Amino acid sequence: MTDLMRAGIIGAGGYTGAELVRLIGAHPKLELRWVAGHESAGRRLSEVLPGTLGVQGVGSLTLERYSAERAAELASALDVVFCCLPHGKSAAVVASLYQAGLTVVDLSADFRTQSQAAYEAWYGPHPAPELLPEAVYGLPERYRRELAGARLIAAPGCYPTSAILPLAPLFAAGLVDVSAPVVIDAKSGVSGAGRSPSASTHYPEAAEGLRAYKVAGAHRHTGEIEQQLERAAGAPVSVLFTPHLVPMSRGILSSSYVKLTSGASLADCREAARAAYPEGGLVTLLEESLPDTLWVRGTARAHISYQRDERTGLLLALCAIDNLTRGASGQALQALNVAFGWDEALGLPVLGQFP
Amino acid sequence: MTDLMRAGIIGAGGYTGAELVRLIGAHPKLELRWVAGHESAGRRLSEVLPGTLGVQGVGSLTLERYSAERAAELASALDVVFCCLPHGKSAAVVASLYQAGLTVVDLSADFRTQSQAAYEAWYGPHPAPELLPEAVYGLPERYRRELAGARLIAAPGCYPTSAILPLAPLFAAGLVDVSAPVVIDAKSGVSGAGRSPSASTHYPEAAEGLRAYKVAGAHRHTGEIEQQLERAAGAPVSVLFTPHLVPMSRGILSSSYVKLTSGASLADCREAARAAYPEGGLVTLLEESLPDTLWVRGTARAHISYQRDERTGLLLALCAIDNLTRGASGQALQALNVAFGWDEALGLPVLGQFP
Amino acid sequence: MTDLMRAGIIGAGGYTGAELVRLIGAHPKLELRWVAGHESAGRRLSEVLPGTLGVQGVGSLTLERYSAERAAELASALDVVFCCLPHGKSAAVVASLYQAGLTVVDLSADFRTQSQAAYEAWYGPHPAPELLPEAVYGLPERYRRELAGARLIAAPGCYPTSAILPLAPLFAAGLVDVSAPVVIDAKSGVSGAGRSPSASTHYPEAAEGLRAYKVAGAHRHTGEIEQQLERAAGAPVSVLFTPHLVPMSRGILSSSYVKLTSGASLADCREAARAAYPEGGLVTLLEESLPDTLWVRGTARAHISYQRDERTGLLLALCAIDNLTRGASGQALQALNVAFGWDEALGLPVLGQFP
Amino acid sequence: MTDLMRAGIIGAGGYTGAELVRLIGAHPKLELRWVAGHESAGRRLSEVLPGTLGVQGVGSLTLERYSAERAAELASALDVVFCCLPHGKSAAVVASLYQAGLTVVDLSADFRTQSQAAYEAWYGPHPAPELLPEAVYGLPERYRRELAGARLIAAPGCYPTSAILPLAPLFAAGLVDVSAPVVIDAKSGVSGAGRSPSASTHYPEAAEGLRAYKVAGAHRHTGEIEQQLERAAGAPVSVLFTPHLVPMSRGILSSSYVKLTSGASLADCREAARAAYPEGGLVTLLEESLPDTLWVRGTARAHISYQRDERTGLLLALCAIDNLTRGASGQALQALNVAFGWDEALGLPVLGQFP
Repeated sequence: MTDLMRAGIIGAGGYTGAELVRLIGAHPKLELRWVAGHESAGRRLSEVLPGTLGVQGVGSLTLERYSAERAAELASALDVVFCCLPHGKSAAVVASLYQAGLTVVDLSADFRTQSQAAYEAWYGPHPAPELLPEAVYGLPERYRRELAGARLIAAPGCYPTSAILPLAPLFAAGLVDVSAPVVIDAKSGVSGAGRSPSASTHYPEAAEGLRAYKVAGAHRHTGEIEQQLERAAGAPVSVLFTPHLVPMSRGILSSSYVKLTSGASLADCREAARAAYPEGGLVTLLEESLPDTLWVRGTARAHISYQRDERTGLLLALCAIDNLTRGASGQALQALNVAFGWDEALGLPVLGQFP
Repeated sequence: MTDLMRAGIIGAGGYTGAELVRLIGAHPKLELRWVAGHESAGRRLSEVLPGTLGVQGVGSLTLERYSAERAAELASALDVVFCCLPHGKSAAVVASLYQAGLTVVDLSADFRTQSQAAYEAWYGPHPAPELLPEAVYGLPERYRRELAGARLIAAPGCYPTSAILPLAPLFAAGLVDVSAPVVIDAKSGVSGAGRSPSASTHYPEAAEGLRAYKVAGAHRHTGEIEQQLERAAGAPVSVLFTPHLVPMSRGILSSSYVKLTSGASLADCREAARAAYPEGGLVTLLEESLPDTLWVRGTARAHISYQRDERTGLLLALCAIDNLTRGASGQALQALNVAFGWDEALGLPVLGQFP
Repeated sequence: MTDLMRAGIIGAGGYTGAELVRLIGAHPKLELRWVAGHESAGRRLSEVLPGTLGVQGVGSLTLERYSAERAAELASALDVVFCCLPHGKSAAVVASLYQAGLTVVDLSADFRTQSQAAYEAWYGPHPAPELLPEAVYGLPERYRRELAGARLIAAPGCYPTSAILPLAPLFAAGLVDVSAPVVIDAKSGVSGAGRSPSASTHYPEAAEGLRAYKVAGAHRHTGEIEQQLERAAGAPVSVLFTPHLVPMSRGILSSSYVKLTSGASLADCREAARAAYPEGGLVTLLEESLPDTLWVRGTARAHISYQRDERTGLLLALCAIDNLTRGASGQALQALNVAFGWDEALGLPVLGQFP
Repeated sequence: MTDLMRAGIIGAGGYTGAELVRLIGAHPKLELRWVAGHESAGRRLSEVLPGTLGVQGVGSLTLERYSAERAAELASALDVVFCCLPHGKSAAVVASLYQAGLTVVDLSADFRTQSQAAYEAWYGPHPAPELLPEAVYGLPERYRRELAGARLIAAPGCYPTSAILPLAPLFAAGLVDVSAPVVIDAKSGVSGAGRSPSASTHYPEAAEGLRAYKVAGAHRHTGEIEQQLERAAGAPVSVLFTPHLVPMSRGILSSSYVKLTSGASLADCREAARAAYPEGGLVTLLEESLPDTLWVRGTARAHISYQRDERTGLLLALCAIDNLTRGASGQALQALNVAFGWDEALGLPVLGQFP
């Protein structure tokens, strides 16, 4: 057991932090040694996450407060830190930890874009632009090579993960007509909105209510999706992304509509996906059924499918993921596994609880 | 009170039937006099719909069994019959009632298409094609004139209602480029699947599960939507319709993506909608907020909105309805109100319970 | 229409206020003329309750701010005011309106107890104790005579309504052994917690979570229940009341366990209920089935049942109500109907939407 | 890896079977080698449990059909079989496997009672009464010694587990007045009803509906609870058990009301629980908060608490478990761990996904 890597979490009281607590607890080569919070600093983890009550060595951890002066101290106590802070607030914290020598996995948007300009178009001034070239986009199926040995990992957003996984192989294989707009109609469970209560996530107003929000290019994930599809296509791509809030706790289903290049067939699309996602991996192509968030809940697995509509010639690409596991914390661990040279699925839940 | 019209319901134990029981009970000019069922024949209505327990004059009704021989008898006992039967089974029943002189509102798909060929392309042989020309499509906002005095009303499907209401005015005003495909991504609550239990509607597998079904042109409502949009456009229209099942009981949100004709603006679209749906009516255009199924639940109201995506130039048209009230039984009553010369909203719930 | 009574609501943006907006809108003898709010003052009602968008004469109302100086002005503009404020804050407002000559229905706890001491034992100093003797407890089935002509009505709490309706007739008929404790295990939907978001009502933490709260005599409704059962029994009664939060929006199911007096039978209990709740009223005794919140949702109806456990000799009394309709706003209107000399069910929804 | 025990599941397509598939897949000393089903025989496991799609070595298993002639063959291919069949059907299958030399964990009620008479009072004729003395009740916290080396384990029912865990230590310590009835008011998620669709589990009728069922001694778990409490007390105990169906997928919260013996205090109760459930085990006593099903979901952990009501002197014992993990499959594995001499928590999820 002397070879356990020591992990810490900043923002352990939120949903992505809580998911990391669960996943690290089940990981054979990681040990959770340190947790930090903001409003929750000074409290026991079991007060903030009562599910840890009675869990040996976890529930009794006390949430600390992080500040940059502590970076050196942490660098000697830990090997890796997961940073679960809001965009804008994350970059400086990440920078201090990274510069102190730690491996850092950032779950915010702060290091997901390659260029400072792209970041600032959506998010405002970047607090640590000099680190942007260091960061690797933490989507192992597409950046496996770059992730090997990486010390700064930008875990992808939940919506982008659900859109990029089914679409990128098609763009990379030249099967999509990039002159036509890509319509991505995505539906997310309420945990995607985070742990802070609000009117729109108040149970009586979220249950039995279904709504779109931040429509017509207003959602920042549009830029992240476009960037990745453009990298796959090697050409500009125009995305119309519409997020919806659905009355369930976890899960994203994205329904994407693309125009295939002339001559490209459904079989070509499936072939491209099979090549990108070999059997035994965490992305599974469904051919005889359709993806359902229920079936991937709590896991790092993605279910994708393609269907061609004869009537319009459009391709419908569906993808179901768990927004917190595959869409955030599980994928963060998967990327870390690759960075550390372990099997990408090491310690990850691959079969969820049902129902 | 001597001027109450006497109503009957065939299929009163299903969801659209139950909704009619509720709505007729609150209607000032209708009186529920007769109910029929199939498996439930012989039982008291309060056994089948326990909400009617203690409701005077309703819960004590006994479900009868209908057969064509009873048409004449019913024609003297009733003025109007609502027929809530599956497509294919409905047409013969409707024909017998109509020919006996009753006003009939059919909630199945059997009389929604104008041409026999169009019906048979989606549903198989039509049992009573000679009546197709008699039927009026029961969407009052579009067929008000035709509905006046109509004796055979084909109540629209739930998905088509949610798609046609926001889109038809745009097609009618020539604002949509009909050469581009129309993408309609629709999400429905589980009551849309009817009252018969099944694996996909079993609570533990419907809650926390989100899925598309009958994709890529497999859902029959595609034809109904296309027919209506083509009538509005006066030209062929090509629709890609993707239905999704969402873990909530009631409601449909449809998100439609269309390409506008060159020169057409967002303002033009809103203007077209305001012209089609004057203030005081049951279709409300939202400009400062986005539709939410929560806000129209239990009512005959539709909330629609338009947003233009600068990035792709596409128009996003959103529409929220209650699939059972606006999408079926309430709209059926609205159409009957128009047929009988009453105010279209007479007796209809226009403000739903919240939350 | 000149005989419409003019109604106002203070606190129209909360759940009980929203329910009154719905119910008054459907009431044939009331007209909503004025609404007030606190945080929402100055906004249109349709911004606070988007369901009123497009509802003529309602959505366009602007929420005002109430202060005691306005009492005289309101007394000439309105006939009745419903006050939906938190306990402690309500009494002074109610007093000002009442003294100005208005009929007031108070939905807070401030006037539910007869004695100042009883109030202060649970709630702290009473702001207007001199009015306590004027107030009538707004449970029409038990205080019909006192409510006739009443100008100050204290609408009962939601949990007490669900407990008193099934139990009071048994205590009044001497069927319950008052020396044994009464165990009331009640389960409420989340709307009972009000419209303000909080951690425990945040969708992802309320869905799939079931919990007791304010147990072992900590919930203030204990006192209100005891008071009413003692009035029915004419003797001290000892209640153990346990509230639970259930992942649904509306509804309360209370399961009460009482010891019958020796010789009292299940038939006696049912007989007592039938006498207290004649057919045609809003409380329905179920004998062949068990109450379900689904069947009374959105209505002012209560479903009750009794079962005797042979093994222990205890009686199980079940009651299902909608916490907002029967448990608050609908019952408030029912009481007002009686106060004004109208039929108690006038304008009330007696059959809910299903499902 | 040569020391993996080979496991099989009969009834793998139901909820307790599916949960075993998940749990065995994560267990370090068990390997799932064989699955059987009835209606699902001949299908791949991934068709019946799509969550296993892409899960190496699991999704590709084919469901077989079991018959007693196969017992010997299975005895050489497997070490342990979990039997997830309905009561009455299970006993003969269990007997054949047990007699062939396999270790059998039976998740039905068939071997939970010690005496044939007790079984037959609730369930009808017992198909294999001669095996009753061989079976050990699989509640490790109470039968740890008996379970060591056991080859026939009767996994407890979900409701009984939730009642016995908090109550048995109190009865065993003589803290409860056995002359007073024990009231157990339990609330279960819908998965407790199994995987077969029915009217009461149809999503639109289960969501927003809360109901008691099989009340007043009609539920068979009453006998199982009484038997275990009587064994703890060494005296007859009289239980009134009321199950309720709650709109959530997983979880049971039981609220039990008992009369303490004179002199017994809340502190005594907590002391008894601490003695029965030492720190580090799977049952956790909460003193500063109350149990919530959310916090134990998907785990084998139970959260219990005690509160004393001064007003009535009664003790309220609360217990939250996951009905499928602690209430069935996880506890079955826990018992097997003890039987095989492993750590009781080996391979079990002790921290659930949140939210």
